[in-house]
Amino acid sequence: MMQYRLGVLGGMGPQATNTFYQFVIDRTDAQTDQEHVNALILSDSEMPDRTSAILSGGEAREGVYRRLLADARLLEGAGCTCIAVPCNTSHFFLDRVQEEIGIPILHMIRETARLLAVQGLKRPGILATDGTIQTGLYQKEFSAAGIEAVVPSTQAQELVMSLIYDDVKAGRDGDPQKFAAIHEDLLAQGCDCGVLACTELSVFADKHHLPPYYTDAMAVLAERAVEACHKPLRHIFIK
Amino acid sequence: MMQYRLGVLGGMGPQATNTFYQFVIDRTDAQTDQEHVNALILSDSEMPDRTSAILSGGEAREGVYRRLLADARLLEGAGCTCIAVPCNTSHFFLDRVQEEIGIPILHMIRETARLLAVQGLKRPGILATDGTIQTGLYQKEFSAAGIEAVVPSTQAQELVMSLIYDDVKAGRDGDPQKFAAIHEDLLAQGCDCGVLACTELSVFADKHHLPPYYTDAMAVLAERAVEACHKPLRHIFIK
Repeated sequence: MMQYRLGVLGGMGPQATNTFYQFVIDRTDAQTDQEHVNALILSDSEMPDRTSAILSGGEAREGVYRRLLADARLLEGAGCTCIAVPCNTSHFFLDRVQEEIGIPILHMIRETARLLAVQGLKRPGILATDGTIQTGLYQKEFSAAGIEAVVPSTQAQELVMSLIYDDVKAGRDGDPQKFAAIHEDLLAQGCDCGVLACTELSVFADKHHLPPYYTDAMAVLAERAVEACHKPLRHIFIK
Repeated sequence: MMQYRLGVLGGMGPQATNTFYQFVIDRTDAQTDQEHVNALILSDSEMPDRTSAILSGGEAREGVYRRLLADARLLEGAGCTCIAVPCNTSHFFLDRVQEEIGIPILHMIRETARLLAVQGLKRPGILATDGTIQTGLYQKEFSAAGIEAVVPSTQAQELVMSLIYDDVKAGRDGDPQKFAAIHEDLLAQGCDCGVLACTELSVFADKHHLPPYYTDAMAVLAERAVEACHKPLRHIFIK
Protein backbone atom coordinates (compact mmCIF):
# COMPACT_ATOMS: atom_id res chain seq x y z
CA MET A 1 0.00 0.00 0.00
CA MET A 2 1.31 3.45 -0.92
CA GLN A 3 2.20 5.36 2.22
CA TYR A 4 1.40 9.05 2.12
CA ARG A 5 3.13 11.57 4.33
CA LEU A 6 2.36 15.27 4.37
CA GLY A 7 5.41 17.51 4.67
CA VAL A 8 4.74 20.86 6.31
CA LEU A 9 7.39 23.48 5.66
CA GLY A 10 6.51 25.85 8.44
CA GLY A 11 7.56 27.94 11.40
CA MET A 12 6.59 31.12 9.55
CA GLY A 13 5.38 31.65 12.19
CA PRO A 14 5.23 28.71 14.59
CA GLN A 15 1.70 29.54 15.73
CA ALA A 16 0.42 29.59 12.15
CA THR A 17 2.06 26.22 11.56
CA ASN A 18 0.42 24.69 14.59
CA THR A 19 -2.97 26.16 13.68
CA PHE A 20 -2.50 24.76 10.17
CA TYR A 21 -1.89 21.26 11.50
CA GLN A 22 -4.96 21.65 13.73
CA PHE A 23 -6.95 22.58 10.60
CA VAL A 24 -5.69 19.36 8.95
CA ILE A 25 -6.70 17.25 11.97
CA ASP A 26 -10.12 18.93 12.18
CA ARG A 27 -10.78 18.38 8.47
CA THR A 28 -9.86 14.67 8.46
CA ASP A 29 -12.78 12.33 8.98
CA ALA A 30 -10.97 10.02 11.44
CA GLN A 31 -12.10 8.04 14.47
CA THR A 32 -8.72 6.57 15.43
CA ASP A 33 -5.10 7.78 15.43
CA GLN A 34 -4.28 5.57 12.47
CA GLU A 35 -6.95 7.15 10.23
CA HIS A 36 -5.27 10.57 10.48
CA VAL A 37 -2.81 12.12 8.04
CA ASN A 38 0.79 11.03 8.64
CA ALA A 39 2.74 14.28 8.76
CA LEU A 40 6.24 15.64 9.21
CA ILE A 41 6.09 19.24 10.32
CA LEU A 42 9.23 21.35 10.17
CA SER A 43 8.75 24.46 12.26
CA ASP A 44 11.85 26.28 11.08
CA SER A 45 11.23 29.26 13.31
CA GLU A 46 14.65 30.78 12.62
CA MET A 47 13.86 31.30 8.92
CA PRO A 48 14.59 35.02 8.29
CA ASP A 49 11.56 37.29 7.88
CA ARG A 50 10.18 36.79 4.38
CA THR A 51 8.72 40.25 3.83
CA SER A 52 11.97 42.05 4.63
CA ALA A 53 14.02 39.56 2.57
CA ILE A 54 11.81 40.04 -0.50
CA LEU A 55 11.72 43.81 -0.18
CA SER A 56 15.49 44.16 0.31
CA GLY A 57 16.34 41.66 -2.46
CA GLY A 58 19.89 40.47 -3.22
CA GLU A 59 21.61 38.13 -0.79
CA ALA A 60 18.88 38.37 1.87
CA ARG A 61 16.34 37.14 -0.68
CA GLU A 62 18.62 34.35 -1.93
CA GLY A 63 19.29 33.26 1.65
CA VAL A 64 15.59 32.66 2.26
CA TYR A 65 15.30 30.77 -1.03
CA ARG A 66 18.23 28.50 -0.15
CA ARG A 67 16.87 27.80 3.33
CA LEU A 68 13.40 26.98 1.97
CA LEU A 69 14.98 24.64 -0.59
CA ALA A 70 17.08 22.91 2.09
CA ASP A 71 13.97 22.46 4.25
CA ALA A 72 11.96 21.09 1.32
CA ARG A 73 14.75 18.62 0.58
CA LEU A 74 14.80 17.54 4.23
CA LEU A 75 11.06 16.79 4.00
CA GLU A 76 11.43 14.96 0.69
CA GLY A 77 14.34 12.92 2.05
CA ALA A 78 12.26 11.94 5.09
CA GLY A 79 9.60 10.29 2.98
CA CYS A 80 7.07 13.07 2.49
CA THR A 81 4.89 12.63 -0.59
CA CYS A 82 3.74 16.26 -0.87
CA ILE A 83 4.52 19.59 0.81
CA ALA A 84 2.30 22.33 2.21
CA VAL A 85 3.80 25.70 3.14
CA PRO A 86 1.48 27.55 5.53
CA CYS A 87 3.03 30.96 4.82
CA ASN A 88 1.65 33.06 1.97
CA THR A 89 4.63 35.38 1.66
CA SER A 90 7.06 32.51 1.10
CA HIS A 91 5.01 31.42 -1.93
CA PHE A 92 7.11 34.06 -3.73
CA PHE A 93 9.90 31.42 -3.77
CA LEU A 94 7.96 28.23 -4.27
CA ASP A 95 7.97 27.85 -8.05
CA ARG A 96 11.80 27.89 -7.90
CA VAL A 97 11.82 25.39 -5.03
CA GLN A 98 9.36 23.15 -6.91
CA GLU A 99 11.75 22.91 -9.87
CA GLU A 100 14.44 21.45 -7.59
CA ILE A 101 12.46 18.72 -5.80
CA GLY A 102 10.58 15.62 -6.86
CA ILE A 103 7.37 15.86 -4.82
CA PRO A 104 4.52 18.32 -5.40
CA ILE A 105 4.17 21.52 -3.40
CA LEU A 106 0.48 22.31 -2.83
CA HIS A 107 0.06 25.94 -3.90
CA MET A 108 -2.10 27.82 -1.40
CA ILE A 109 -2.67 30.86 -3.62
CA ARG A 110 -3.57 28.97 -6.81
CA GLU A 111 -5.91 26.67 -4.87
CA THR A 112 -7.64 29.67 -3.30
CA ALA A 113 -8.02 31.33 -6.72
CA ARG A 114 -9.56 28.13 -8.04
CA LEU A 115 -12.10 28.00 -5.19
CA LEU A 116 -13.16 31.65 -5.61
CA ALA A 117 -13.53 31.17 -9.37
CA VAL A 118 -15.84 28.18 -8.80
CA GLN A 119 -17.87 30.30 -6.39
CA GLY A 120 -18.21 33.08 -8.99
CA LEU A 121 -16.45 35.69 -6.86
CA LYS A 122 -14.87 38.49 -8.87
CA ARG A 123 -13.41 41.18 -6.65
CA PRO A 124 -11.73 39.86 -3.48
CA GLY A 125 -9.88 42.14 -1.08
CA ILE A 126 -6.49 40.60 -0.23
CA LEU A 127 -5.35 40.85 3.39
CA ALA A 128 -1.64 40.03 3.40
CA THR A 129 1.81 41.27 4.39
CA ASP A 130 3.53 44.09 2.52
CA GLY A 131 5.83 41.41 1.08
CA THR A 132 2.95 39.42 -0.39
CA ILE A 133 1.17 42.53 -1.70
CA GLN A 134 4.19 44.22 -3.25
CA THR A 135 5.37 41.12 -5.10
CA GLY A 136 1.93 40.87 -6.71
CA LEU A 137 1.66 37.18 -5.82
CA TYR A 138 -2.11 37.21 -5.37
CA GLN A 139 -2.73 39.74 -8.13
CA LYS A 140 -0.93 37.54 -10.67
CA GLU A 141 -2.45 34.20 -9.68
CA PHE A 142 -5.95 35.64 -9.32
CA SER A 143 -5.72 37.46 -12.64
CA ALA A 144 -4.88 34.14 -14.30
CA ALA A 145 -8.14 32.81 -12.84
CA GLY A 146 -10.13 35.80 -14.12
CA ILE A 147 -10.40 37.45 -10.70
CA GLU A 148 -9.38 40.99 -9.78
CA ALA A 149 -7.40 41.03 -6.53
CA VAL A 150 -7.96 44.32 -4.69
CA VAL A 151 -5.40 45.60 -2.18
CA PRO A 152 -6.27 47.65 0.92
CA SER A 153 -5.70 51.40 1.09
CA THR A 154 -2.36 52.53 2.54
CA GLN A 155 -3.95 53.18 5.94
CA ALA A 156 -5.78 49.84 6.04
CA GLN A 157 -2.61 48.01 4.94
CA GLU A 158 -0.77 49.51 7.93
CA LEU A 159 -3.44 48.01 10.18
CA VAL A 160 -3.06 44.62 8.48
CA MET A 161 0.70 44.67 9.15
CA SER A 162 0.13 45.74 12.75
CA LEU A 163 -2.37 42.92 13.30
CA ILE A 164 0.14 40.40 11.89
CA TYR A 165 3.35 41.59 13.54
CA ASP A 166 2.38 43.56 16.68
CA ASP A 167 -0.46 41.22 17.63
CA VAL A 168 -0.41 37.62 16.36
CA LYS A 169 3.34 37.07 15.87
CA ALA A 170 3.87 38.58 19.34
CA GLY A 171 1.55 35.94 20.85
CA ARG A 172 -1.55 38.12 21.30
CA ASP A 173 -5.08 37.27 20.19
CA GLY A 174 -5.31 40.33 17.90
CA ASP A 175 -7.30 43.55 18.12
CA PRO A 176 -10.79 43.23 16.56
CA GLN A 177 -10.96 47.05 16.18
CA LYS A 178 -8.09 46.92 13.71
CA PHE A 179 -9.88 44.23 11.76
CA ALA A 180 -13.15 46.19 11.75
CA ALA A 181 -11.41 49.19 10.14
CA ILE A 182 -9.82 46.92 7.52
CA HIS A 183 -13.23 45.40 6.77
CA GLU A 184 -14.73 48.88 6.21
CA ASP A 185 -11.96 49.60 3.71
CA LEU A 186 -12.77 46.48 1.65
CA LEU A 187 -16.47 47.35 1.64
CA ALA A 188 -15.69 50.92 0.55
CA GLN A 189 -13.68 49.49 -2.36
CA GLY A 190 -16.61 47.37 -3.52
CA CYS A 191 -15.02 43.98 -2.77
CA ASP A 192 -17.44 41.03 -2.98
CA CYS A 193 -15.32 39.00 -0.54
CA GLY A 194 -12.10 39.11 1.46
CA VAL A 195 -9.21 36.64 1.48
CA LEU A 196 -7.16 35.93 4.60
CA ALA A 197 -3.89 35.76 2.71
CA CYS A 198 -1.51 35.64 5.64
CA THR A 199 -1.46 32.66 7.97
CA GLU A 200 -1.29 34.94 11.02
CA LEU A 201 -4.72 36.24 9.96
CA SER A 202 -5.89 32.60 9.88
CA VAL A 203 -4.76 32.39 13.52
CA PHE A 204 -6.67 35.62 14.24
CA ALA A 205 -9.79 34.23 12.52
CA ASP A 206 -9.46 31.01 14.52
CA LYS A 207 -9.90 33.02 17.73
CA HIS A 208 -12.64 35.41 16.57
CA HIS A 209 -15.85 35.12 14.59
CA LEU A 210 -15.36 36.62 11.17
CA PRO A 211 -18.28 36.98 8.76
CA PRO A 212 -18.59 34.40 5.93
CA TYR A 213 -17.45 37.23 3.65
CA TYR A 214 -13.90 35.95 4.31
CA THR A 215 -12.16 32.95 2.74
CA ASP A 216 -9.20 31.64 4.70
CA ALA A 217 -6.46 30.58 2.26
CA MET A 218 -4.87 28.37 4.94
CA ALA A 219 -8.12 26.46 5.40
CA VAL A 220 -8.22 25.83 1.66
CA LEU A 221 -4.63 24.53 1.86
CA ALA A 222 -5.57 22.23 4.76
CA GLU A 223 -8.36 20.65 2.70
CA ARG A 224 -6.04 20.08 -0.24
CA ALA A 225 -3.47 18.52 2.11
CA VAL A 226 -6.00 16.00 3.44
CA GLU A 227 -6.98 15.12 -0.13
CA ALA A 228 -3.36 14.81 -1.26
CA CYS A 229 -2.83 12.23 1.52
CA HIS A 230 -5.90 10.30 0.35
CA LYS A 231 -7.81 10.68 3.61
CA PRO A 232 -11.55 11.38 3.71
CA LEU A 233 -12.48 15.03 4.32
CA ARG A 234 -14.61 15.98 7.29
CA HIS A 235 -16.78 18.68 5.82
CA ILE A 236 -16.37 22.00 7.48
CA PHE A 237 -17.97 24.77 5.49
CA ILE A 238 -15.34 27.03 3.96
CA LYS A 239 -16.42 30.63 3.22
CA MET B 1 26.24 29.55 17.52
CA MET B 2 24.86 26.16 18.50
CA GLN B 3 21.57 25.51 16.75
CA TYR B 4 18.98 23.67 18.80
CA ARG B 5 16.14 21.77 17.22
CA LEU B 6 13.45 19.95 19.18
CA GLY B 7 12.42 16.62 17.72
CA VAL B 8 8.86 15.58 18.52
CA LEU B 9 8.16 11.88 18.04
CA GLY B 10 4.41 12.06 17.92
CA GLY B 11 1.15 11.18 16.25
CA MET B 12 0.12 9.09 19.25
CA GLY B 13 -2.39 10.60 18.77
CA PRO B 14 -2.15 13.47 16.30
CA GLN B 15 -4.32 15.75 18.45
CA ALA B 16 -2.09 15.21 21.49
CA THR B 17 0.94 16.06 19.35
CA ASN B 18 -0.66 19.25 18.13
CA THR B 19 -1.66 20.24 21.67
CA PHE B 20 1.90 19.44 22.85
CA TYR B 21 3.46 21.78 20.29
CA GLN B 22 0.90 24.43 21.29
CA PHE B 23 2.06 23.98 24.90
CA VAL B 24 5.66 24.54 23.74
CA ILE B 25 4.71 27.72 21.83
CA ASP B 26 2.67 29.03 24.77
CA ARG B 27 5.50 28.39 27.24
CA THR B 28 8.21 30.10 25.16
CA ASP B 29 8.76 33.76 26.00
CA ALA B 30 8.98 34.93 22.38
CA GLN B 31 7.91 38.12 20.61
CA THR B 32 8.99 37.17 17.09
CA ASP B 33 9.00 33.98 15.00
CA GLN B 34 12.77 33.69 15.32
CA GLU B 35 12.67 33.60 19.15
CA HIS B 36 10.58 30.41 19.13
CA VAL B 37 11.81 26.83 19.44
CA ASN B 38 12.93 25.34 16.13
CA ALA B 39 11.10 22.03 15.93
CA LEU B 40 10.67 19.00 13.72
CA ILE B 41 7.43 17.24 14.55
CA LEU B 42 6.83 13.74 13.23
CA SER B 43 3.17 12.91 13.54
CA ASP B 44 3.49 9.21 12.75
CA SER B 45 -0.24 8.62 13.04
CA GLU B 46 0.00 5.10 11.61
CA MET B 47 2.09 3.85 14.57
CA PRO B 48 0.19 0.78 15.86
CA ASP B 49 -1.72 1.22 19.11
CA ARG B 50 0.79 1.11 21.97
CA THR B 51 -1.48 -0.32 24.66
CA SER B 52 -2.52 -3.33 22.59
CA ALA B 53 1.07 -3.92 21.40
CA ILE B 54 2.41 -3.93 24.97
CA LEU B 55 -0.36 -6.13 26.30
CA SER B 56 -0.11 -8.69 23.48
CA GLY B 57 3.73 -8.75 23.55
CA GLY B 58 5.87 -10.67 21.05
CA GLU B 59 6.11 -9.41 17.48
CA ALA B 60 3.46 -6.70 17.93
CA ARG B 61 5.51 -5.22 20.75
CA GLU B 62 8.78 -5.46 18.80
CA GLY B 63 7.13 -3.83 15.79
CA VAL B 64 6.27 -0.74 17.80
CA TYR B 65 9.80 -0.62 19.23
CA ARG B 66 11.35 -0.80 15.77
CA ARG B 67 9.06 1.90 14.39
CA LEU B 68 9.78 4.21 17.34
CA LEU B 69 13.52 3.65 16.83
CA ALA B 70 13.27 4.37 13.09
CA ASP B 71 11.35 7.56 13.84
CA ALA B 72 13.88 8.65 16.47
CA ARG B 73 16.69 8.06 13.98
CA LEU B 74 14.84 10.12 11.36
CA LEU B 75 14.66 13.02 13.84
CA GLU B 76 18.32 12.65 14.84
CA GLY B 77 19.38 12.50 11.19
CA ALA B 78 17.41 15.70 10.47
CA GLY B 79 19.43 17.72 12.97
CA CYS B 80 17.33 17.47 16.12
CA THR B 81 19.30 18.01 19.33
CA CYS B 82 16.79 16.37 21.70
CA ILE B 83 13.55 14.41 21.44
CA ALA B 84 10.23 14.70 23.24
CA VAL B 85 7.65 11.92 22.93
CA PRO B 86 4.19 13.23 23.86
CA CYS B 87 2.77 9.75 24.51
CA ASN B 88 3.05 8.26 27.98
CA THR B 89 2.39 4.67 26.95
CA SER B 90 5.27 4.62 24.47
CA HIS B 91 7.67 5.52 27.29
CA PHE B 92 7.65 1.75 27.88
CA PHE B 93 10.06 1.53 24.91
CA LEU B 94 12.14 4.67 25.36
CA ASP B 95 15.07 3.42 27.43
CA ARG B 96 15.78 0.89 24.67
CA VAL B 97 15.44 3.58 21.98
CA GLN B 98 17.71 5.92 23.96
CA GLU B 99 20.50 3.32 23.94
CA GLU B 100 20.50 3.33 20.13
CA ILE B 101 20.59 7.06 19.41
CA GLY B 102 23.01 9.87 20.17
CA ILE B 103 20.68 12.66 21.32
CA PRO B 104 18.80 12.79 24.63
CA ILE B 105 15.16 11.78 24.94
CA LEU B 106 13.40 13.98 27.51
CA HIS B 107 11.62 11.54 29.84
CA MET B 108 8.11 12.77 30.61
CA ILE B 109 7.51 10.37 33.52
CA ARG B 110 10.84 10.95 35.30
CA GLU B 111 10.48 14.71 34.93
CA THR B 112 6.97 14.58 36.38
CA ALA B 113 8.18 12.47 39.32
CA ARG B 114 10.92 15.02 39.96
CA LEU B 115 8.42 17.89 40.00
CA LEU B 116 6.04 16.14 42.41
CA ALA B 117 8.94 15.23 44.72
CA VAL B 118 10.01 18.89 44.86
CA GLN B 119 6.43 19.85 45.69
CA GLY B 120 6.33 17.30 48.55
CA LEU B 121 3.48 15.30 47.04
CA LYS B 122 3.37 11.70 48.20
CA ARG B 123 0.32 9.87 46.87
CA PRO B 124 -0.65 10.81 43.32
CA GLY B 125 -3.45 9.05 41.46
CA ILE B 126 -2.26 8.09 37.97
CA LEU B 127 -4.73 8.56 35.11
CA ALA B 128 -3.36 6.59 32.17
CA THR B 129 -4.12 3.89 29.62
CA ASP B 130 -4.30 0.22 30.61
CA GLY B 131 -0.97 -0.19 28.80
CA THR B 132 0.76 2.43 30.92
CA ILE B 133 -0.79 1.17 34.15
CA GLN B 134 -0.17 -2.54 33.59
CA THR B 135 3.50 -2.08 32.65
CA GLY B 136 4.03 -0.24 35.95
CA LEU B 137 5.82 2.63 34.18
CA TYR B 138 4.62 5.30 36.59
CA GLN B 139 4.73 3.05 39.67
CA LYS B 140 8.42 2.25 39.03
CA GLU B 141 9.61 5.78 38.23
CA PHE B 142 7.60 7.34 41.05
CA SER B 143 8.78 4.76 43.56
CA ALA B 144 12.38 5.65 42.66
CA ALA B 145 11.51 9.25 43.59
CA GLY B 146 9.95 8.19 46.91
CA ILE B 147 6.37 8.64 45.73
CA GLU B 148 3.58 6.06 45.83
CA ALA B 149 1.69 5.97 42.52
CA VAL B 150 -1.95 4.98 43.09
CA VAL B 151 -4.00 3.44 40.29
CA PRO B 152 -7.76 3.91 39.86
CA SER B 153 -10.26 1.23 40.82
CA THR B 154 -11.30 -1.16 38.03
CA GLN B 155 -14.50 0.80 37.41
CA ALA B 156 -12.74 4.17 37.35
CA GLN B 157 -10.03 2.78 35.04
CA GLU B 158 -12.74 1.76 32.55
CA LEU B 159 -13.92 5.37 32.52
CA VAL B 160 -10.36 6.60 31.95
CA MET B 161 -10.02 4.31 28.91
CA SER B 162 -13.42 5.41 27.60
CA LEU B 163 -12.47 9.09 27.95
CA ILE B 164 -9.22 8.45 26.04
CA TYR B 165 -10.47 6.19 23.25
CA ASP B 166 -14.22 6.81 22.85
CA ASP B 167 -13.96 10.56 23.38
CA VAL B 168 -10.65 12.32 22.71
CA LYS B 169 -9.08 9.97 20.13
CA ALA B 170 -12.41 10.00 18.28
CA GLY B 171 -12.24 13.79 18.00
CA ARG B 172 -14.71 14.68 20.77
CA ASP B 173 -14.15 17.14 23.60
CA GLY B 174 -14.64 14.48 26.29
CA ASP B 175 -17.39 13.87 28.82
CA PRO B 176 -16.86 15.81 32.10
CA GLN B 177 -19.20 13.36 33.92
CA LYS B 178 -16.73 10.55 33.31
CA PHE B 179 -13.94 12.69 34.68
CA ALA B 180 -15.97 13.65 37.76
CA ALA B 181 -16.46 9.96 38.64
CA ILE B 182 -12.74 9.31 38.18
CA HIS B 183 -11.95 12.27 40.45
CA GLU B 184 -14.22 10.86 43.19
CA ASP B 185 -12.32 7.58 43.00
CA LEU B 186 -8.95 9.30 43.57
CA LEU B 187 -10.35 11.23 46.53
CA ALA B 188 -11.79 8.03 48.02
CA GLN B 189 -8.33 6.45 47.75
CA GLY B 190 -6.75 9.31 49.70
CA CYS B 191 -4.65 10.68 46.82
CA ASP B 192 -3.08 14.09 47.50
CA CYS B 193 -2.95 14.90 43.79
CA GLY B 194 -3.72 13.45 40.36
CA VAL B 195 -1.44 13.08 37.36
CA LEU B 196 -2.70 13.36 33.78
CA ALA B 197 -0.53 10.53 32.53
CA CYS B 198 -1.97 10.15 29.05
CA THR B 199 -1.62 12.91 26.48
CA GLU B 200 -5.26 12.54 25.44
CA LEU B 201 -6.16 13.60 28.98
CA SER B 202 -3.93 16.65 28.46
CA VAL B 203 -6.09 17.43 25.43
CA PHE B 204 -9.21 16.95 27.61
CA ALA B 205 -7.76 19.26 30.29
CA ASP B 206 -6.93 21.85 27.64
CA LYS B 207 -10.66 22.12 26.82
CA HIS B 208 -12.05 21.98 30.38
CA HIS B 209 -11.18 23.55 33.71
CA LEU B 210 -9.67 20.95 35.97
CA PRO B 211 -8.86 21.75 39.59
CA PRO B 212 -5.20 22.50 40.49
CA TYR B 213 -5.21 19.07 42.13
CA TYR B 214 -4.03 17.74 38.73
CA THR B 215 -0.52 17.88 37.27
CA ASP B 216 -0.36 17.48 33.51
CA ALA B 217 2.70 15.37 32.59
CA MET B 218 2.63 16.73 29.02
CA ALA B 219 2.86 20.31 30.31
CA VAL B 220 5.91 19.31 32.36
CA LEU B 221 7.44 17.82 29.20
CA ALA B 222 6.72 21.02 27.25
CA GLU B 223 8.61 23.10 29.84
CA ARG B 224 11.59 20.77 29.72
CA ALA B 225 11.56 20.93 25.91
CA VAL B 226 11.74 24.74 25.93
CA GLU B 227 14.63 24.58 28.40
CA ALA B 228 16.46 21.91 26.39
CA CYS B 229 16.34 24.26 23.37
CA HIS B 230 17.77 27.09 25.48
CA LYS B 231 14.79 29.38 25.05
CA PRO B 232 13.38 31.49 27.90
CA LEU B 233 10.31 30.05 29.59
CA ARG B 234 7.07 32.02 29.70
CA HIS B 235 5.81 31.21 33.15
CA ILE B 236 2.49 29.48 33.17
CA PHE B 237 1.65 28.01 36.52
CA ILE B 238 1.85 24.22 36.43
CA LYS B 239 -0.22 22.26 38.95
